[in-house]
Amino acid sequence: MKRYVFLFEEAKGMSRFELGGKGYGIVEMVAAGLPVPPGLVITTEACKDYYKNGGEMPDGLMRQVREKIDELSRRVGKRFGDPKSPLIVSVRSGAPYSMPGMMDTILNLGVNDDVVRGLILSTGNERFVYDAYRRFIQMFGRVAMGVPGERFDRRLEELRERLGVKSDQDIPANELRGLIEEFKRVVRESTGRELPQDPWEQLELAVRAVFNSWNNPRAREYRRYYKISEDLGTAVNIQLMVFGNMGPDSGTGVGFTRDPSTGEKRLYGEYLSNAQGEDVVAGIRTPLSLDVLKGELREQLEEVARRLEQHFRDMQDFEFTVERGRLYILQSRNGKRTANAAVKIAVDMTEEKLITIEEALMRVSPYDLVHLLHRRLDPRVKVNPIAKGLNASPGVATGKVVFDVTEADQMSSRGEKVILVRPETTPEDIKGVIAAQGVLTSRGGMTSHAAVVARGMGKPAVVGCGEIRIEMESGYFVTNKGLKVNKGDVITIDGSTGNVFLGEVPTVEAELTTELRTLLKWADERRRLGVRANADTPEAARRAREFGAEGIGLCRTERMFNAPDRLPIVREMIMATTDDERRRALAKLYELQLRDFKEIFKVMRGLPVTVRLLDLPLHEFLPSESQLLVELHEISASGAPKAEIEKKEVMLKKVRQLQEHNPMLGHRGCRLAVSHPDIYKMQVRAILRAAIEVRREVGETVGVQIMIPQSVDSNELAHVKKVVEEAAEETFEELRERIDYKFGTMIETPRAALTASKIASVVEFFSFGTNDLTQTTFAFSRDDAEGKFLPIYLEKKILADNPFETIDREGVGRLVAIGTKEGKQANPRLEVGICGEHGGDPRSIYFFDEAGLDYVSCSPYRIPIARLAAAQASLQVKEVIPVTA
Amino acid sequence: MKRYVFLFEEAKGMSRFELGGKGYGIVEMVAAGLPVPPGLVITTEACKDYYKNGGEMPDGLMRQVREKIDELSRRVGKRFGDPKSPLIVSVRSGAPYSMPGMMDTILNLGVNDDVVRGLILSTGNERFVYDAYRRFIQMFGRVAMGVPGERFDRRLEELRERLGVKSDQDIPANELRGLIEEFKRVVRESTGRELPQDPWEQLELAVRAVFNSWNNPRAREYRRYYKISEDLGTAVNIQLMVFGNMGPDSGTGVGFTRDPSTGEKRLYGEYLSNAQGEDVVAGIRTPLSLDVLKGELREQLEEVARRLEQHFRDMQDFEFTVERGRLYILQSRNGKRTANAAVKIAVDMTEEKLITIEEALMRVSPYDLVHLLHRRLDPRVKVNPIAKGLNASPGVATGKVVFDVTEADQMSSRGEKVILVRPETTPEDIKGVIAAQGVLTSRGGMTSHAAVVARGMGKPAVVGCGEIRIEMESGYFVTNKGLKVNKGDVITIDGSTGNVFLGEVPTVEAELTTELRTLLKWADERRRLGVRANADTPEAARRAREFGAEGIGLCRTERMFNAPDRLPIVREMIMATTDDERRRALAKLYELQLRDFKEIFKVMRGLPVTVRLLDLPLHEFLPSESQLLVELHEISASGAPKAEIEKKEVMLKKVRQLQEHNPMLGHRGCRLAVSHPDIYKMQVRAILRAAIEVRREVGETVGVQIMIPQSVDSNELAHVKKVVEEAAEETFEELRERIDYKFGTMIETPRAALTASKIASVVEFFSFGTNDLTQTTFAFSRDDAEGKFLPIYLEKKILADNPFETIDREGVGRLVAIGTKEGKQANPRLEVGICGEHGGDPRSIYFFDEAGLDYVSCSPYRIPIARLAAAQASLQVKEVIPVTA
Repeated sequence: MKRYVFLFEEAKGMSRFELGGKGYGIVEMVAAGLPVPPGLVITTEACKDYYKNGGEMPDGLMRQVREKIDELSRRVGKRFGDPKSPLIVSVRSGAPYSMPGMMDTILNLGVNDDVVRGLILSTGNERFVYDAYRRFIQMFGRVAMGVPGERFDRRLEELRERLGVKSDQDIPANELRGLIEEFKRVVRESTGRELPQDPWEQLELAVRAVFNSWNNPRAREYRRYYKISEDLGTAVNIQLMVFGNMGPDSGTGVGFTRDPSTGEKRLYGEYLSNAQGEDVVAGIRTPLSLDVLKGELREQLEEVARRLEQHFRDMQDFEFTVERGRLYILQSRNGKRTANAAVKIAVDMTEEKLITIEEALMRVSPYDLVHLLHRRLDPRVKVNPIAKGLNASPGVATGKVVFDVTEADQMSSRGEKVILVRPETTPEDIKGVIAAQGVLTSRGGMTSHAAVVARGMGKPAVVGCGEIRIEMESGYFVTNKGLKVNKGDVITIDGSTGNVFLGEVPTVEAELTTELRTLLKWADERRRLGVRANADTPEAARRAREFGAEGIGLCRTERMFNAPDRLPIVREMIMATTDDERRRALAKLYELQLRDFKEIFKVMRGLPVTVRLLDLPLHEFLPSESQLLVELHEISASGAPKAEIEKKEVMLKKVRQLQEHNPMLGHRGCRLAVSHPDIYKMQVRAILRAAIEVRREVGETVGVQIMIPQSVDSNELAHVKKVVEEAAEETFEELRERIDYKFGTMIETPRAALTASKIASVVEFFSFGTNDLTQTTFAFSRDDAEGKFLPIYLEKKILADNPFETIDREGVGRLVAIGTKEGKQANPRLEVGICGEHGGDPRSIYFFDEAGLDYVSCSPYRIPIARLAAAQASLQVKEVIPVTA
Repeated sequence: MKRYVFLFEEAKGMSRFELGGKGYGIVEMVAAGLPVPPGLVITTEACKDYYKNGGEMPDGLMRQVREKIDELSRRVGKRFGDPKSPLIVSVRSGAPYSMPGMMDTILNLGVNDDVVRGLILSTGNERFVYDAYRRFIQMFGRVAMGVPGERFDRRLEELRERLGVKSDQDIPANELRGLIEEFKRVVRESTGRELPQDPWEQLELAVRAVFNSWNNPRAREYRRYYKISEDLGTAVNIQLMVFGNMGPDSGTGVGFTRDPSTGEKRLYGEYLSNAQGEDVVAGIRTPLSLDVLKGELREQLEEVARRLEQHFRDMQDFEFTVERGRLYILQSRNGKRTANAAVKIAVDMTEEKLITIEEALMRVSPYDLVHLLHRRLDPRVKVNPIAKGLNASPGVATGKVVFDVTEADQMSSRGEKVILVRPETTPEDIKGVIAAQGVLTSRGGMTSHAAVVARGMGKPAVVGCGEIRIEMESGYFVTNKGLKVNKGDVITIDGSTGNVFLGEVPTVEAELTTELRTLLKWADERRRLGVRANADTPEAARRAREFGAEGIGLCRTERMFNAPDRLPIVREMIMATTDDERRRALAKLYELQLRDFKEIFKVMRGLPVTVRLLDLPLHEFLPSESQLLVELHEISASGAPKAEIEKKEVMLKKVRQLQEHNPMLGHRGCRLAVSHPDIYKMQVRAILRAAIEVRREVGETVGVQIMIPQSVDSNELAHVKKVVEEAAEETFEELRERIDYKFGTMIETPRAALTASKIASVVEFFSFGTNDLTQTTFAFSRDDAEGKFLPIYLEKKILADNPFETIDREGVGRLVAIGTKEGKQANPRLEVGICGEHGGDPRSIYFFDEAGLDYVSCSPYRIPIARLAAAQASLQVKEVIPVTA
């Protein structure tokens, strides 16, 4: 017989996976001697077996629970259903990874009609007792018996209206007694069953409800978003109730041992007197900040915070209840935090000697850094906010106002940027938050649902913004200055200050904080992988260098061809009918490219720069056939001169001649160099001349790496190498000066990876082009897939991740591993990098480290992410560290 | 010091690769005691070293030659330059694989002014001696000294005109003496050098010329066509001259031990009296058929033929010369033959116990069978030929008349079918023969250049058609009935009968000969690989079955959707705006598909049939955007009713919505089934119902295999499997009858191959779709590549073969090998086949056998080829057997 149930003090040393996060925290606190109400935990194993059994309670589970409850009864002198000394417990879910608000909890379990009577006698607090009972019925009815929550809410609301009171606290005891009867009727009418009076029956139903809540739709949505496994299951914590709602000397609150928004080392949190825990989380009454709390309770909380950090060696998020002046800690867990705070806390704790540098590096999720590197409001621009709320999650977001969650989701999937505006958010709204750029709420505090969830996703949020009044039905909100903002209007929110602006507000680049610089320096000291940038412009190159890039791993030359001032010349070259015309166009492009390269090389001097020669098929530089057809019809209709029409017709002919069925698999990359070597020669001459001239001008130049796209075969590369060498020799003779350069290739076709050992003998470096390699390995055209079938594949879980974001280890990754291993075996001096978008994705970076690559190259904004992820890779991280905020 | 030179009798046991084909044949004949003029052979090694040295004679080569010539001199009592007893030799090329007429030969080497004088004294035959000398100058001047051949030809022609004679034989001795002086002057004026008088100098220049001829353009073209390695080099044979031009009791000829056109066992060949060998090959004088040769020479030739076959154990093609009544065999080699003859000879020789069944199977190149399976003239159609010539190479060809080789090449590369019509062909015309569907010449015999080359390529040829007169310059030919046929007119030639027809003549399917059936039966008994057909129609299925297919490995359903009567319904389905409309369209398609499948299943009953569900993206069934744009403009301009315009506009919108950047990598195959399961369900229901109904109707049905295209992942297949199972269960319930079926997938994306071990656990069979797999592995869109850059890649030898024709072992093949091995490891009962075009390509079939596949599937016409190639694969053939004809 499996053992599923443990008293808290019996479970010491068991893992988070067995006990769930909440149970683990409690067990640890009990062991550390913190004031925790006693109780027991049902392990996640029971939940997993429950699902294995197809929703049947595992054998012997409830018997084990009863034995442990009996032990608990003996220790605390209270028993289920005993009117004189009733045992009253909370039943809470607790999954291995925190999923705030996603699963269910039942408080005050054990209360029934008899207990109510006894409690009134023993406490003399009739109101409290009735309030506890109606809360129990409300929660139990909804969670364990499936009564729609609003049926209770409506009754409560009607009662408040009838009495003319605002808060539930103002409802007198006798009215609550009547409400209880009404609630019981609601239960009866909704379910056809009576509210169970037997606490044991209540308990079994509650445990079942918690198990079921693991699989509710919002919990599954949350796990999908955060990539949490479906197989973990939840534990159940059954804990002696303590009551924060026993009067003004009671209360409940949440605390953070450090500021979860900034990381500052100070007690942070909120307290609500005469309330139960759910009141705080639900964000219905705005609580008191711990900052203004004084006296003994504050001192006790400070001491608890210190002991929690010493014990858990991380910032803690804890719940506490004060029952008639006595403090209890109900749970503690590693506190979610903003990316900024995560970095600061990791670095501070290292400096406090609480954790090691290695631990600090593991404390920050690289995905988090994304948020730190985003833009902030341009300080030079003075715009007045239209409203101000709480700065719940930092960052700036701009988008169209939308009130409805489904609408937000639809607009976002059409590519529109939206800001979700709601009085408050609930777990049901998670889809809308995912879809939105940011969230604005008029109610709730820093620990309200909206705030917690937005921080978790690194999305800007302004919450509790009482200065706006939201008229959801009518589709607008009004500020306290009378400004009306309609659905669809664009607003900007600044989650770092709490300001709300009308329209789009200019932003500037982020800067790295001191703590982040420290953390990244530590990362640099520990990583094996090099980190380079994908950058095509001097500005991007500059930014990459600031962010710590060790070179440019991919400088695309397409943009240089596509710029509005170049395109006409490129078209001249394509449309040339004589060699002479063609040469003249190429000569012009040469001058322009020379200038481009010189600028970039100056910025990057001292570092390697890999320039990829032209990859695009020529027709990409011409208008499309249907565009030309439409234009032709228009100018013919408007009676344009014949010469103009003829010119268009010539172009149409050329477009048709160059047209391809599948341009992605067409006449492009080095295939173009085989048929039209002139273009590559022009580019090579411009690159090498630029490098030499930069050396002459500033005394230092870059390490030139010339990279050939789309190769499939060593013969092909040998052929193109000759073309490159000829152009190089021409340049060296012309300038009477030589320069070293490396010749290499993208590995972006499956065949190149599969024949890497031969290719490696012709080149000095590989750079995996995992974007194209993913397209060909899957036979998925990214342009077509992401708009059409890929979302369905992700939704149906046919694919766990979008392979264009996170490397597909089994398919594409296998080719990368084969190519790297066999390439290096054939040519031990071969340098191997990756310059697809995966180069900036942490989980992909762990893979590239494992596969033995030398460096990753990614967009400038992802450089810090890559530095950190590369360090974590060196520390043998295999799976990504869950986002911390 | 390497040994390069061997007397014939010293070289016994050396290989064809060292001695070349001609040298090998001579050495073997010497060993077998046949009457061969003595001589020596310079090995191919010398030629290879010559090229390694950059065109310098290898060290010591000429010294070794001199030593062996001295030995020869001692044996025959003749010495170079000795007027009394001069040594006169032929110098012939001889590559390991025969390249008829492609390389150079020099006869009568050793003749000079002194020798001429001496010879006239000793032979008393002034005319013969002068003729020999002028022939020598003519050949030596052209081949070894680079004098343009027509300069000699013109002088000769002028002389004939002046004398008013038709044949060179009619030129009297004194005129020949004058001609010799003229020829010497031509040499002097063309080269600035005198004709060398020293035979040793002549010899060195001749050897050099033979080496050089290995690399002449037409030899290289020939090797490219026949896929002969560039690295083999040629040997040089130096052999004592015997003279067929010493008078009426002399002559020269070529013989075949069996009929090279039909394979019949009878002496076959031609004889030209008082001539040297070159006269026969050049096809200038029409020789006498050996059929009409009588007397002692015929008997001697019959005896020689018998001994040759006994020795070489294959049909021989031999050259002989009769010098003053004495027969010499100059060379013997395996005779080229038509495909038909190859089969017959292989089977006959097996039955004669000359060779084993295994040898017989190796004697026929599977590529040859292509020609046997082609169509022949419909015997029911009576058309009168416009002319009749020699039936030099069997088969029927239709095309436009073209006289110019370059024009033929150009027209063919534009996709036009042409018949090359020439008075005769020369090695320079090879490009035109390659380009043409067939060849028609007015001169030359069965062993003329045109005949030999056309047979070699398996192209129909009618030669020596004296009934037509060709006016090349004016661009027409005239038949002896006065019919004028212009350039560009369509004619049909039947190489099996020698008939020439005007216009296109109807043809019928080929039938397998008894011998071919025997050979294929032997092949079937020895092959491991199964052979199935790609067939989408009942007709194709019937043909496949006749040709020995063991099932259908690929039945595409695209054609069923694309047929003119179906397309409107398919469009209805795509354009449906309500579920109901869509269902109605699908129901119609269901009925049509049901009928299609029933017909095919009836034909194939008792055998497995693999049906591939719809693969194409939906937009392929709609008109293109530009087509619709043009149509819209047209109907708007013509004032069409609004409703019609609107309908087009709706379709344009749909087309734009479905449009893809890269349809090949788009929303197609099973991706379509994931998003639109209805179509696959309809197809599965039609397939299974058809199978059950066929069983009910004829008592037997097919082994149904349902195949999913374009898969990338095991989850995806598990998902589609559910869709298939649902449709299957529906059908079984509806019909109250079940049927077994197999569920499998194409492996046509690299990822599917790379994750085969997982996929194998979800399916019962794999079928490699090597067409698509080649496209994605190379990132080559076939449609784009073959028209644009692939020809350049083949021409520049970046790729040795077109990977869409012959499997790319290193890249695509590696994926096939990985997929097969890992798939079978994971699921030992997995059935693995291949249904790309490579399934009918012999070299690819050898690979698939090696890689452990279970069967190949190919077009019906390729079934016999695949059967033979599969047997050869089982006999461990790695490289293809050179075509025999």
